[in-house]
Amino acid sequence: MPSTFPDHNIHPEATGIAKKTVDAHQKPEELVFWSGWFCPFNQRVWIILEEKGIPYQYKEVNPYAKEESFLKLNPRGLVPTIEYQGKPLYESTVLCEFLEDVYLDRPPHVLPKDPYEKARVRIWADHTSKHIIPAWHRLLQLQTKEDQDKARQDLYEAQRKLAEEIKGPYFAGEEFGLVDVLNVPWVSRDHVLREYREYKREGAGENYARWADLLEKRDSVVKTTSDKDKLMVIYDRYLAGTANSEVAKAIREGKPLP
Amino acid sequence: MPSTFPDHNIHPEATGIAKKTVDAHQKPEELVFWSGWFCPFNQRVWIILEEKGIPYQYKEVNPYAKEESFLKLNPRGLVPTIEYQGKPLYESTVLCEFLEDVYLDRPPHVLPKDPYEKARVRIWADHTSKHIIPAWHRLLQLQTKEDQDKARQDLYEAQRKLAEEIKGPYFAGEEFGLVDVLNVPWVSRDHVLREYREYKREGAGENYARWADLLEKRDSVVKTTSDKDKLMVIYDRYLAGTANSEVAKAIREGKPLP
Repeated sequence: MPSTFPDHNIHPEATGIAKKTVDAHQKPEELVFWSGWFCPFNQRVWIILEEKGIPYQYKEVNPYAKEESFLKLNPRGLVPTIEYQGKPLYESTVLCEFLEDVYLDRPPHVLPKDPYEKARVRIWADHTSKHIIPAWHRLLQLQTKEDQDKARQDLYEAQRKLAEEIKGPYFAGEEFGLVDVLNVPWVSRDHVLREYREYKREGAGENYARWADLLEKRDSVVKTTSDKDKLMVIYDRYLAGTANSEVAKAIREGKPLP
Repeated sequence: MPSTFPDHNIHPEATGIAKKTVDAHQKPEELVFWSGWFCPFNQRVWIILEEKGIPYQYKEVNPYAKEESFLKLNPRGLVPTIEYQGKPLYESTVLCEFLEDVYLDRPPHVLPKDPYEKARVRIWADHTSKHIIPAWHRLLQLQTKEDQDKARQDLYEAQRKLAEEIKGPYFAGEEFGLVDVLNVPWVSRDHVLREYREYKREGAGENYARWADLLEKRDSVVKTTSDKDKLMVIYDRYLAGTANSEVAKAIREGKPLP
């Protein structure tokens, strides 16, 4: 039934280097990572797990055909979900902070210790969620030139504002942290925008471009990235405006992202 | 110029019991609270300041006629803004967590210590921001019966879901905390919805109604609440769909709240 389940032909599992990372995390652990290999929100959590070297068991969820056992754990049915000592948690930003709390002794430290610097990071994490990610998805998904031009300008402006606050080399200084991890999955996927939406990193300024170039080279990012051709099967649907994910529907209806 | 500045006739300062609280916080302190007496987002921070007994200097900002010195501190121009040791911070949820970090020795504790419980609180804080507050403002502001009926059902559903997670008497248990403070300013203003929008607390279930009744009686809430007639001058504009705040504009344009 291709018209009812148009996203059923997505590749069922991670590929390339990411597949090796998945294979290395199959044995049962106290922490289970319910993941979708292609989802950028999901990759945020995966990156933190890899960065901190946290023991975890990887389980793939097909968000277009969710299992009952998964829906029982997370009624919202969204990845990423973490099952910790048998109890579920979700929301990618919440999960990043949770992993920092539980594995505080393992670097890198997702949040600065100083309360003022920590609050500053949270302000720009909020800016990422409210302004950068929605503009990115509007640019990807909207169909008229006018809508795309507006979305591209919104994206450049939001990324430029954030870039003005980078301490360097990473957002909060020497350590890879929360604002970096919240943005990098969309940086490593921006080849889609560069190829099909006349986007370039320099459009958001040199500071932004330098930061983006650095982020995507991070080991944890490379190790959680699947083959480009498998990702493009999914992005082709977004580019054509026919994707059916929760994010895609929200963008089409002009609603906040889930 | 009433058509250009339609919101200029709002009362310029807090009244009633809230005025007494303002008067008691005029002398210079390390922490300056840039406030708007009528703003519910703002009241969240004010409540934490009062709950923890933090020394602060209160400064009123008219958000419809912002001073240069304030805009220099916070270019987004939104209240609440906190100036801490001369440096600005904003975003009400970020500020609540900041005050907890800096004044961790002063009860009540806004966040549980246990990482799992802390993450659970953050999930429902996020639910409040994404689902409860937007539905509340749509119900207040939208003009057709159909839109209002839809918004009321959305609001009941969002409040009911949250209420299922209350440990009691407060959201996270015995201590008044983050989810309580994020919701209570809209609880203490829901008389507007009850009087003009056929809303009742029981519509979201008995659990919700019991929790809401408890929250609005909290000392810190009473001490930061101005006279109803002054608030109604503002809410009359929202009810008529003519308010010009950032929140009002976002709701009218179907955009996420600022």
